[in-house]
Amino acid sequence: MSEVGEFRRVAILGVGLIGASFGAALENARAGLSIVAYDRPEVLRKLRAKFNWETCEDLASAVRGADLIYMALPVGAAIEMLPGIAAQCERQALVTDAGSTKTRMCKAAAKVFADRAKFLGGHPIAGREVSGFEHADAELFRGKRYVVIRDGRGKDESDFRVQRFVELLRAIGAEPVWSDAETHDWAMAVVSQMPQLAAIALARVIAEETDETGLPASLAGTGLHDLLRTAGSPYEVWRDICMTNTENIARSLDRAAQAIDFLRTHLTSRELEQEFAGANEVYRALRETDSAPRADETQTGKPAGKAKSNG
Amino acid sequence: MSEVGEFRRVAILGVGLIGASFGAALENARAGLSIVAYDRPEVLRKLRAKFNWETCEDLASAVRGADLIYMALPVGAAIEMLPGIAAQCERQALVTDAGSTKTRMCKAAAKVFADRAKFLGGHPIAGREVSGFEHADAELFRGKRYVVIRDGRGKDESDFRVQRFVELLRAIGAEPVWSDAETHDWAMAVVSQMPQLAAIALARVIAEETDETGLPASLAGTGLHDLLRTAGSPYEVWRDICMTNTENIARSLDRAAQAIDFLRTHLTSRELEQEFAGANEVYRALRETDSAPRADETQTGKPAGKAKSNG
Repeated sequence: MSEVGEFRRVAILGVGLIGASFGAALENARAGLSIVAYDRPEVLRKLRAKFNWETCEDLASAVRGADLIYMALPVGAAIEMLPGIAAQCERQALVTDAGSTKTRMCKAAAKVFADRAKFLGGHPIAGREVSGFEHADAELFRGKRYVVIRDGRGKDESDFRVQRFVELLRAIGAEPVWSDAETHDWAMAVVSQMPQLAAIALARVIAEETDETGLPASLAGTGLHDLLRTAGSPYEVWRDICMTNTENIARSLDRAAQAIDFLRTHLTSRELEQEFAGANEVYRALRETDSAPRADETQTGKPAGKAKSNG
Repeated sequence: MSEVGEFRRVAILGVGLIGASFGAALENARAGLSIVAYDRPEVLRKLRAKFNWETCEDLASAVRGADLIYMALPVGAAIEMLPGIAAQCERQALVTDAGSTKTRMCKAAAKVFADRAKFLGGHPIAGREVSGFEHADAELFRGKRYVVIRDGRGKDESDFRVQRFVELLRAIGAEPVWSDAETHDWAMAVVSQMPQLAAIALARVIAEETDETGLPASLAGTGLHDLLRTAGSPYEVWRDICMTNTENIARSLDRAAQAIDFLRTHLTSRELEQEFAGANEVYRALRETDSAPRADETQTGKPAGKAKSNG
């Protein structure tokens, strides 16, 4: 038992892959904790066959009495839900989200929760090719980084509810990493959103080239499947990401198109070797990051003046 | 025992991942067959610790007496080796290669082997993230397509040595697919070489954005690892691919850069939904292709007039 205590009742708003995996992980990590799930009625009906959680079709009833409110929804839907949560939740509750962009969400939450519950932006760097609670995995967060957003005034990290949540993240095997929202959104645009959106574009090129004979797609190797994993992502999730991190993503995509053009014009020249040397280095670094033992807690932040803002 | 007989002595020129895996697969499939490996002396020295194959530091001795000569080398090195092979090999031998581009190789081979051994271009659509005989896998080709190149005069498919090789491919679990060299090179540029080179470019963007604090690369998820798998590829292999399939690759990279630019300028518009719908379709098709039962032998070829030539 920690000195900051433990959450007793957790409302999970949105029980897709992330929400349901978080719930499953909590059940394993904290015996005494009760979970209430909020989602569309048809989702909750199916959910009850798999999880022994309380379910709630009404937001007010779901958040009332909860000391942790976990939003696992597309960013736009989560932002829209904030006023409804604020109107009904306990003043001592911690409200957190799991969205892929943080600046807009944290700004919206700062307004809504000004003198009410504590809000903490979060982003688990975890996911799978599949979606839906049917694929929920209590081990989804184990060994994965989980970004938590500091509010810039240094108060977050000392709030007991925040400490409690960070301990909970460790309890489910995640590695909490502190960042500010702007740095997070810049970084995610570069290492996640740009590459995934570029894969969408590559998939489109292959689709346009493929004719009624099935060529060239029919000659694709399994490597293409790895490369185009994101091409199976639902539009609904990406619409919100693109809407809320537009400038960072646009800038990274612009650099990507330029880098591809550079490669194209140097296919038969010695510069190609430099390109591969640089790419090989990134690849090695990624492999090391994947397999490196993690520090107990990591602080990240761009040196002052280097963070790229999104608006 | 097949009516077209079996190869008895196979010279494998280049015992990297593909060459050594082919040898290992042959050993499992054909008991009576003997294998001689040709490579640099230091590679052969280490190879002997793992495989009980005859080794040969001298090309002439390696190919002499072999009825199948299997080149598993970068395309450029393989083309350079053709005259040496032609000067020493048996007139009844089948010479084949495993290179990733076929037009240049097949043209060069047609000249060199005009009235000598039979040449058959080949390309196993198989590979792994790792290289070297240390990772050789007798099952590498199982369930994978293996493109064999028809010479356009329809004679290849009836040659007994070619039939023998196609049967051997089936014996090691591969699915032979006939194509002409130009169609192969166009298709591979679109579904393999363009996406992999684009990944190199994306990795470069991430490298350039990453600073001394390790951001943003330190926040990359495992998805990026999948996406950038090719970024670990050695330059030596790609130099030859880019040199021998330049126009097809350049054209595909140009389309990729344009597709990324289109996405960039439509991040917040409804067109994004169309892009995802198209990409989702490609993704589903690839998944189905990966898991579909294969026909015994597949014929591929673009309708007349649609094949894109590379020179």
